[in-house]
Amino acid sequence: MNEIFAALGKIKASKPLVHHITNWVTIYDCANVTRCIGALPVMAHAKEEAKDMTSISQALVLNIGTLTPSLVGSMLLSARRANEKRIPVVLDAVGAGATRFRTEKAKEILTSVRIDIIKGNAGEIATLAGAKAEVKGVESGAFAGERKQIAKALARKYRATVVMTGKYDVVSDGRRTYVVANGHMMMGSIVGTGCMAASVIGAFAAVEKDYAKAAAYALVCFGIAGEIAAKKIRGPGSFKERFYDELYNLDEKTIARMQRIRVEK
Amino acid sequence: MNEIFAALGKIKASKPLVHHITNWVTIYDCANVTRCIGALPVMAHAKEEAKDMTSISQALVLNIGTLTPSLVGSMLLSARRANEKRIPVVLDAVGAGATRFRTEKAKEILTSVRIDIIKGNAGEIATLAGAKAEVKGVESGAFAGERKQIAKALARKYRATVVMTGKYDVVSDGRRTYVVANGHMMMGSIVGTGCMAASVIGAFAAVEKDYAKAAAYALVCFGIAGEIAAKKIRGPGSFKERFYDELYNLDEKTIARMQRIRVEK
Amino acid sequence: MNEIFAALGKIKASKPLVHHITNWVTIYDCANVTRCIGALPVMAHAKEEAKDMTSISQALVLNIGTLTPSLVGSMLLSARRANEKRIPVVLDAVGAGATRFRTEKAKEILTSVRIDIIKGNAGEIATLAGAKAEVKGVESGAFAGERKQIAKALARKYRATVVMTGKYDVVSDGRRTYVVANGHMMMGSIVGTGCMAASVIGAFAAVEKDYAKAAAYALVCFGIAGEIAAKKIRGPGSFKERFYDELYNLDEKTIARMQRIRVEK
Repeated sequence: MNEIFAALGKIKASKPLVHHITNWVTIYDCANVTRCIGALPVMAHAKEEAKDMTSISQALVLNIGTLTPSLVGSMLLSARRANEKRIPVVLDAVGAGATRFRTEKAKEILTSVRIDIIKGNAGEIATLAGAKAEVKGVESGAFAGERKQIAKALARKYRATVVMTGKYDVVSDGRRTYVVANGHMMMGSIVGTGCMAASVIGAFAAVEKDYAKAAAYALVCFGIAGEIAAKKIRGPGSFKERFYDELYNLDEKTIARMQRIRVEK
Repeated sequence: MNEIFAALGKIKASKPLVHHITNWVTIYDCANVTRCIGALPVMAHAKEEAKDMTSISQALVLNIGTLTPSLVGSMLLSARRANEKRIPVVLDAVGAGATRFRTEKAKEILTSVRIDIIKGNAGEIATLAGAKAEVKGVESGAFAGERKQIAKALARKYRATVVMTGKYDVVSDGRRTYVVANGHMMMGSIVGTGCMAASVIGAFAAVEKDYAKAAAYALVCFGIAGEIAAKKIRGPGSFKERFYDELYNLDEKTIARMQRIRVEK
Repeated sequence: MNEIFAALGKIKASKPLVHHITNWVTIYDCANVTRCIGALPVMAHAKEEAKDMTSISQALVLNIGTLTPSLVGSMLLSARRANEKRIPVVLDAVGAGATRFRTEKAKEILTSVRIDIIKGNAGEIATLAGAKAEVKGVESGAFAGERKQIAKALARKYRATVVMTGKYDVVSDGRRTYVVANGHMMMGSIVGTGCMAASVIGAFAAVEKDYAKAAAYALVCFGIAGEIAAKKIRGPGSFKERFYDELYNLDEKTIARMQRIRVEK
């Protein structure tokens, strides 16, 4: 059986609960894509219940898109519980580098708790790695320099898996580096694809303990759904609807035929 | 005239304002479905204006999906005002049983103010009724035991109408019990259908003072729209779009032909 | 070249960052429509980073749809920074008049900082202008009195551009008054079109320093997309999807052919 499809099958069979503490912009889409991929989403940010919700979950996804000091507090409570339970913690460093507050809080989270998977675009990851980068809001394009080297260095620094999204997604755990070439330009035409990718990574990490593999497999599925959806649409509105449909319907043949993933050791 | 369609017509004619204090995940969908059914939504959670907004509304919908202590405070202020005005208050007990905080706060709301319609899935209602139940996050499947008996018992305890959603929705006011068999499996493939159902129930309760009837009629309309929408879609993305269309376009013939509702006394 | 299309082209070429401090209901749609029109959205409301985010932005959009005292604080911090930088500040006065809190805070914002573009429906603008008006929640229809006169008076009072939406949108800077007749009834069938219009106005104002022109041009594009989308849909679900598609695909010929805008001096 195709290994990526097998992981997807595990999600659908075990329906892991993926706890999110996330931003107010794409919170619905994060929940919905989690359901689409076969897992169960739960969003709970109050400090009074964050830890308890993590206790019954199989993965934790943190997203700093509309961060406040109070949310940071709940993130730390939940992440500590996740660390105790040894369930995967994903940090989507949305907009790191755009403001001092966001950069500092992202670093504070990284140094206070164990983050298993650090995700961002080139600018965000470079900011966390201390590399020179120009970040424009929560968006950032390619920048000069060695993308893979930066991802690898950050992975080693925090002994984590680093996901750097872009035209080619780079996933590195410091030893192995996956390059995923699936995806489509239209995915950038709607808000929230990055956040949604983190949710799908969380679902895969709940069932696949090799987190580099989990993240890369998630990005393959996510990207293939985007490629198929992009074929028959008129614009971002119809793309988004179709994207959910295609992600929900992914089958083994399609994954095996379309997957564009390679690993460097 | 078909009685359910007549109630729907009353909503469209009087356009009741339905005040929500709800969660950050499905807040847009709650607002949008309220508009779809012909009512007007308003969301206002600040303690500085919650009561005033309830003062100009015809129904109040409370949803504990992303609860905080501050939101509980606003809910109580609004519910007291709604009680004074004798307009219906719906409580959607999302995730009751999942964390101690949520269960306790749901019970605190139930004992502090008059809730006219208590809504939840089997696990959530069982939690509030003190029955044994296993609740997984905000999702829960069927569980052993007498669903109707639990709904009835909770209805009697709080002199309220209880809505227990599931493959068959049960609505009981302690005397009469409606069973609604409309709906489609695809409704579970997207996030937010439960929350949206509560908004539609709120709109119906604004125009139909027999709340058990109001809730059952709302669920019939909601379920029929889901059944029609499910026929011509490819997955959850197209289902959701179509669901809004079908709910907006419901006509008398369709309701009369498709309604699957019975009452036990 | 058509002047409206030229402005749209400037947005797509320069991709201005539009900072929003907005409500929790339509926050996603505000972000997504900003992207659709070719600009970049960023949402950041924490007082710890609001000002810094405005510092790297080209426009600021404030929306009081789910206002809290804490959000007002962040809005003032951001607006002061925007005033210093001389980038446009748009205030969407959602629900002004519905509660005392909202009305007072809207006025407090107007008197504390420079608002370049004040947007609302007839009832909201009348409330801010001190004219007699009846406002029902966040919705309000036409009301008696001179719409253009009220817009003009408010524009003069605050030396701002005033946008009063409705069947005919009125845009006045106190000297010139634009009337835009584009748009379609279906735009009122979904929640959030008003908020989305404010985001599009923000994007245009980032590239066109004549704010009355910017607002009117934005409303022409917005309305045309609505008219085209309304032609081939079944209801509000498909309308919304199509609306995003059409806005994204607007071309010069379509704008030139369909624009319904006139100016009175």
